[in-house]
Amino acid sequence: MSNQSAISPRRTEDFPEWYQQVVRAAELAEPSDVRGCMVIRPWGFGIWENMQHQLDAMFRATGHRNAYFPLFIPLSYFAKEAEHVEGFAKECAIVTHTRLEVDADGKMKPASPLNEPLVVRPTSETIIGATYAKWVQSYRDLPILLNQWCNVVRWEMRPRLFLRTTEFLWQEGHTVHETEAEAREETQRMLGVYETFARDHCALPVFSGEKSESEKFPGAVQTTTIEAMVQDRKAIQAGTSHFLGQNFAKASGIQFQSREGKQEFGWTTSWGMTTRMVGTVVMTHGDDDGVILPPRIAPTHIVINPITTKEETRARVLEACERLALQLREKRYVDLAIEVEIDKRDLGGGVKNWEWIKKGVPIRVELGPRDLEKNSVAVGRRDQPVKEKQFMPVQEFVANAPEMLMSIQQNLYDRALKFRDENTRKIDNKEDFYEFFTPKNRERPEIHGGFALAHWNGSREIEERIKNDLKVTIRVVPFGDAEPGRCIFTGEPSRRRVVWAKAY
Amino acid sequence: MSNQSAISPRRTEDFPEWYQQVVRAAELAEPSDVRGCMVIRPWGFGIWENMQHQLDAMFRATGHRNAYFPLFIPLSYFAKEAEHVEGFAKECAIVTHTRLEVDADGKMKPASPLNEPLVVRPTSETIIGATYAKWVQSYRDLPILLNQWCNVVRWEMRPRLFLRTTEFLWQEGHTVHETEAEAREETQRMLGVYETFARDHCALPVFSGEKSESEKFPGAVQTTTIEAMVQDRKAIQAGTSHFLGQNFAKASGIQFQSREGKQEFGWTTSWGMTTRMVGTVVMTHGDDDGVILPPRIAPTHIVINPITTKEETRARVLEACERLALQLREKRYVDLAIEVEIDKRDLGGGVKNWEWIKKGVPIRVELGPRDLEKNSVAVGRRDQPVKEKQFMPVQEFVANAPEMLMSIQQNLYDRALKFRDENTRKIDNKEDFYEFFTPKNRERPEIHGGFALAHWNGSREIEERIKNDLKVTIRVVPFGDAEPGRCIFTGEPSRRRVVWAKAY
Repeated sequence: MSNQSAISPRRTEDFPEWYQQVVRAAELAEPSDVRGCMVIRPWGFGIWENMQHQLDAMFRATGHRNAYFPLFIPLSYFAKEAEHVEGFAKECAIVTHTRLEVDADGKMKPASPLNEPLVVRPTSETIIGATYAKWVQSYRDLPILLNQWCNVVRWEMRPRLFLRTTEFLWQEGHTVHETEAEAREETQRMLGVYETFARDHCALPVFSGEKSESEKFPGAVQTTTIEAMVQDRKAIQAGTSHFLGQNFAKASGIQFQSREGKQEFGWTTSWGMTTRMVGTVVMTHGDDDGVILPPRIAPTHIVINPITTKEETRARVLEACERLALQLREKRYVDLAIEVEIDKRDLGGGVKNWEWIKKGVPIRVELGPRDLEKNSVAVGRRDQPVKEKQFMPVQEFVANAPEMLMSIQQNLYDRALKFRDENTRKIDNKEDFYEFFTPKNRERPEIHGGFALAHWNGSREIEERIKNDLKVTIRVVPFGDAEPGRCIFTGEPSRRRVVWAKAY
Repeated sequence: MSNQSAISPRRTEDFPEWYQQVVRAAELAEPSDVRGCMVIRPWGFGIWENMQHQLDAMFRATGHRNAYFPLFIPLSYFAKEAEHVEGFAKECAIVTHTRLEVDADGKMKPASPLNEPLVVRPTSETIIGATYAKWVQSYRDLPILLNQWCNVVRWEMRPRLFLRTTEFLWQEGHTVHETEAEAREETQRMLGVYETFARDHCALPVFSGEKSESEKFPGAVQTTTIEAMVQDRKAIQAGTSHFLGQNFAKASGIQFQSREGKQEFGWTTSWGMTTRMVGTVVMTHGDDDGVILPPRIAPTHIVINPITTKEETRARVLEACERLALQLREKRYVDLAIEVEIDKRDLGGGVKNWEWIKKGVPIRVELGPRDLEKNSVAVGRRDQPVKEKQFMPVQEFVANAPEMLMSIQQNLYDRALKFRDENTRKIDNKEDFYEFFTPKNRERPEIHGGFALAHWNGSREIEERIKNDLKVTIRVVPFGDAEPGRCIFTGEPSRRRVVWAKAY
């Protein structure tokens, strides 16, 4: 058994294929018949709903409210900010017609061309900006602090479930401020929210900082980001917060009368986190048996598997399971109710057990006739080897369940941090850098690279060359104290090390 | 003062215009620059969020889970069910191109035509059906009980905020069952959920029953509906639940091996409720001073208005307000936390008071220096005349707040029921029917009509004639015991009275 696993291939054999398989096996999502669009299944959507609720509470606590803006953006609005439209032009889906009509061949065809094509929002700065321009007259109308949860569309040539899909779900915050300082502060505050959410809710250690010029959001003055490392040592951008300066305010005409009575342009920010986060969690924590969910975002924390093979004890076993579920549901874990499911399906206990392992439910409990006698349960933690079970008295398990969930959450974080730290290296010359990012072992090509902390002269030219040579980019220029040095490619002075990696 | 009101025109002067004004004045929503699409502002979106949370809990309690399916539907899928595509053909928005490119004139143009156009979902039976077809093999895979919260697009020539918009938000439930009986039962169950939600959460009395053939959902075997009456005596369809028979199962190929080992088509249902519900609430409960919100769906239940005109007592007044808010927040109203807001804005107390009246917050509390001395508050209930205030000791108010909210909720329902009953009439001949639906008073044209309960021979021809003559349609064929009679238009036998009305 030791060389078998529930997911084939294993991570070390073919990480990208392992990811596709694990997402399917856990019933998180699947491709739809619409190119690049996915179907998010209940288990995957339940994870996203938890992320939503928890992030949403953090947005409210920082003074934001939700609103909703149109799906469509008139082309002329979209084109108002030059860098913006250029950045998104290749990814736009465009509504050009309304109405369907049967043509001469008896086929349905689009019938009425629109005067102005509508872009399906890839992001909403321009359409929201047009509305804000109407709302803002005076400094008294500021700040505006809104967020929306919605779908967006960016045409994707190489889709990958959750990580890159043509349609995805996200939240986008859009704020307007009186001063540059306030807008910069907001940008940082929301990056902080993302960092906290990634760490404390998704068990993801991240590097935070800003993007280089070439990786910035189109139209932004500054893009800040959190970057996670997944198990093939690549980086995933897990959330971004943009300081937009006055670029979009000028494009949309967001002007106000200042305290001094002058007409001034507002200072805006935007920030977003997407369903990609679900994929990041899977790629970070999963193992060869399936998904492993951080308890805080798991749709079900504890699944109870009744062993009802003997007809004569069946009713009593089920009753004991119901009792256990009730007791557990009265407990709270952090600020959450404990979600418990009893899997009463008429399938073999082993089949059901493996399904829940693959889905990554944090705690699995088995309760059968013998447990009934001893008033005990068999408990499996998803952060421990799947064959390991702890037998314990029911009451002890009930009392300890919240703590056990917290311990799983912490373990996942600690493991991910350890993995990231082991694969993050300060590199001080070009040869080591190229060596670091070159696969060495033909059998296990995934074992190379990671995060390289290296000095850089700040030029876009170097970034391009490294990208061409190694497919490696600067993921983030960390905040914090600078450590001056010399660019490892040119020998020129460098203010600080930056984080280089291959990325999704 | 008695002839002044916060909203102009009054309801009796011009109801449609009153509605537009009240939606704007309460900052619920506004038209966007995209034809037919609205911007839902935080106060309006807060109402929708409450509706969502409460309905969602009811869906879960009836065994449903949430999922997410693509925004786009390939044209060929959409066209699979003939009645369906015909029914929605005029309302479709169609994506025909991806990518933007600068053309010879320097203008941005759609660049890459798609091989197959994509319809922006007006509803998702066909795209969800295609997925279900893959999931269902055996009767063991049934039932499938899913719901999605999303945006849909139906091109609208005469948009009206919330009631008819090109893009709107809704939930759509889609289920597959093994037998016809189960699917019919599900259709009824979900209509029951809508009826309960309308009554107990939105304070809306509704008639429930089924639609006539001509008003059915395109592709359905049976459409069931709840119909509310608003203050201009027109009907609003507030939620529908469809029994789809095997129509969509056949179109999408949802087949399963039955218990008898035969290949059979599934039986499907779909059901939806939309942001239109927000408009229905406004039109039902609002008055000439603005919106009146049923407490259960109000984003804020109680607003506290500190009277801080005197500098020397300002700090103490604010402190007392904070204390009051804390005490109120510890209370619960039905299954909800009481949401309290202190309006500390530096505006006149009267200005703020009127803003909250227009927004329809259920309870307004004023607390000033004199109240401080007497340890009392001045309380205004939105279901009572805006000038009426009750002065009461702080502790009494805190103790009674939940009950007061319940009483407001009940009052709104009782009023709406009384209004509906007063404007619902059994009509037994054609002349009275035409008379009922003809404006009599030129000064107050809105005072006519309502719900007419009249016998009908079941023919589409009569429906069409009445629609042409009076713009009146059959809103619902009620369930329940039949009362046989004779069609008032033809004298032919009729099994039961049906509900006729003008409608939104």
